[in-house]
Amino acid sequence: VKTCLEAGKNVVTSNKALVAAHGTELLQIARDKNINFQFEASVGGGIPIIRPLYTCLMGEKIEEITGILNGTTNFILTKMDKEGASFDAVLKEAQALGYAEADPTADVGGHDTCRKISILTAMATGKEVNYEDIYTEGITEITDTDFKYAEKLGTSVKLFGSSRIDGDKVVAFVAPMMIAKEHPLYAVSDVYNGVLVKSNMLGTSMYYGRGAGKLPTASAVVADIMEEAKNLNKNIPLGWGADKLAIAPVEESAHAYFVRMAGAADALAELAGQYLGECKVVTLDGLDEFAVVTQVMSEKKFNEAKAALEEKLAAAGSKVLQRIRVQA
Amino acid sequence: VKTCLEAGKNVVTSNKALVAAHGTELLQIARDKNINFQFEASVGGGIPIIRPLYTCLMGEKIEEITGILNGTTNFILTKMDKEGASFDAVLKEAQALGYAEADPTADVGGHDTCRKISILTAMATGKEVNYEDIYTEGITEITDTDFKYAEKLGTSVKLFGSSRIDGDKVVAFVAPMMIAKEHPLYAVSDVYNGVLVKSNMLGTSMYYGRGAGKLPTASAVVADIMEEAKNLNKNIPLGWGADKLAIAPVEESAHAYFVRMAGAADALAELAGQYLGECKVVTLDGLDEFAVVTQVMSEKKFNEAKAALEEKLAAAGSKVLQRIRVQA
Repeated sequence: VKTCLEAGKNVVTSNKALVAAHGTELLQIARDKNINFQFEASVGGGIPIIRPLYTCLMGEKIEEITGILNGTTNFILTKMDKEGASFDAVLKEAQALGYAEADPTADVGGHDTCRKISILTAMATGKEVNYEDIYTEGITEITDTDFKYAEKLGTSVKLFGSSRIDGDKVVAFVAPMMIAKEHPLYAVSDVYNGVLVKSNMLGTSMYYGRGAGKLPTASAVVADIMEEAKNLNKNIPLGWGADKLAIAPVEESAHAYFVRMAGAADALAELAGQYLGECKVVTLDGLDEFAVVTQVMSEKKFNEAKAALEEKLAAAGSKVLQRIRVQA
Repeated sequence: VKTCLEAGKNVVTSNKALVAAHGTELLQIARDKNINFQFEASVGGGIPIIRPLYTCLMGEKIEEITGILNGTTNFILTKMDKEGASFDAVLKEAQALGYAEADPTADVGGHDTCRKISILTAMATGKEVNYEDIYTEGITEITDTDFKYAEKLGTSVKLFGSSRIDGDKVVAFVAPMMIAKEHPLYAVSDVYNGVLVKSNMLGTSMYYGRGAGKLPTASAVVADIMEEAKNLNKNIPLGWGADKLAIAPVEESAHAYFVRMAGAADALAELAGQYLGECKVVTLDGLDEFAVVTQVMSEKKFNEAKAALEEKLAAAGSKVLQRIRVQA
């Protein structure tokens, strides 16, 4: 790709790993040569999202981009939600259907989502993002029991890639999130992707479509080619420069938290509340465990409270079984 | 606007009535003068939808555009759904909040939605659409009882503007539609708008955002102005020509139908089935009426069956109380 651009050839790619790792350099060569390097298909194949970011939203200050950006994990989580199946069982099914790779780490570990949110964050801020700076948690620890609680709470669990931009401070992360039915991304199911954009004037907008697939990818590539053909020898201003974006640690993000603990709620919920603050307590029939949902707090504060609670739980023969961030 | 364009001045507008009525002429003047006439803000103020139609989707053959395009009616229907309130009560509240005009006819009668779907249909086909050709039914006949049935069926009722494009045949209409929870537009609530686009390669994509408001409209106008400023003395290819699009009559559309009838299901459901075909029967406790949901059939066939059924119902002292199209 670099050789092509240096030779003055316009380039279109769907390769997100390339864009995330070398986008800054490739965009600069395109600018220097007055040609174009475009990559609509690299994020959400069937969702026009890159182009709206540099055309429709160009007068906007973007405050948040949050997306369901990986079709494989969304397929798995949707199946777990609807059918009550375990992660392992659904992963095997997804592999048999060709929706998941034999080595599914890039998808289920959140790394694919990480590259995509890093590209979107760079588009939104105009600065280079090192995707390795983005805290990334996958979905391998999400269980069918979590979905039973989620159902009782009227929520679901989705893998989010998210960036919140507040002046110079940008908090970005990839993690499973518990979200309510009212969340615009709640209805994004199966292999579909969705991207929610909050900006200063437009407010909340959302883009939804197929995450991948030959035809959606081809369509995005064709749209790029047509735009480049209309702009021969004229660089379309887009992308980001060499300024590096500082990503704040995930400890500076704030969420509510869903926490499952072994033992009986009657005996332990009060203890949990002493450390985690005012909580909603949830129980499931027939299980010797319970869960709480905390109020919104910084992740740093939550981690400290959880560590202190875990000591006390251990003394009582209990322990924390799960913790999932909750979109309040 | 015409005078400005003829004088060689680029124009941006948010006036959908102007675009729907005179777009063809104004677009042609812009082409002749090699300048630009743009109108992103005219449809779904806070949703970038016009621009994706001529950029992101430019390699696509569009097969369907269906949208919730009017914030006032969507606010009213959402309130009726969530609170069980009557149309009149919610309309008064919407007027008090400034969400509905003192004369709400353009909104609740579906005429605003009609102009917007006619603009989107012209964008999708490249042909002029006479909005008066589009069958338009508003929401004034939708009642709180309808929403009780909708809840029991796991559905909601939304005002759709819709165009289905099949070769030379285009069926377009504006009407309240009963839709299931799984429909991508189900989650579009309150004053939000959503536009679903089905196309040959991309498949289903969806755009969501605020329907109106000062800031979203301003943002769309700014994006248009910036694009025009980057394209001075160069017409951006968009919009439609003078070829007129023939809109097929709504009788050629096909839906399932929700039909409410006075009287007891025990006595009358079989009769209804004889005319409407295999139906799902729904009853509500305490009401001397029932409803059925038919299979999908052409509207022509349904209207004939309904007329024949109504004669028999009259003889039995019953009548049809409501009919709402159902998105199957």
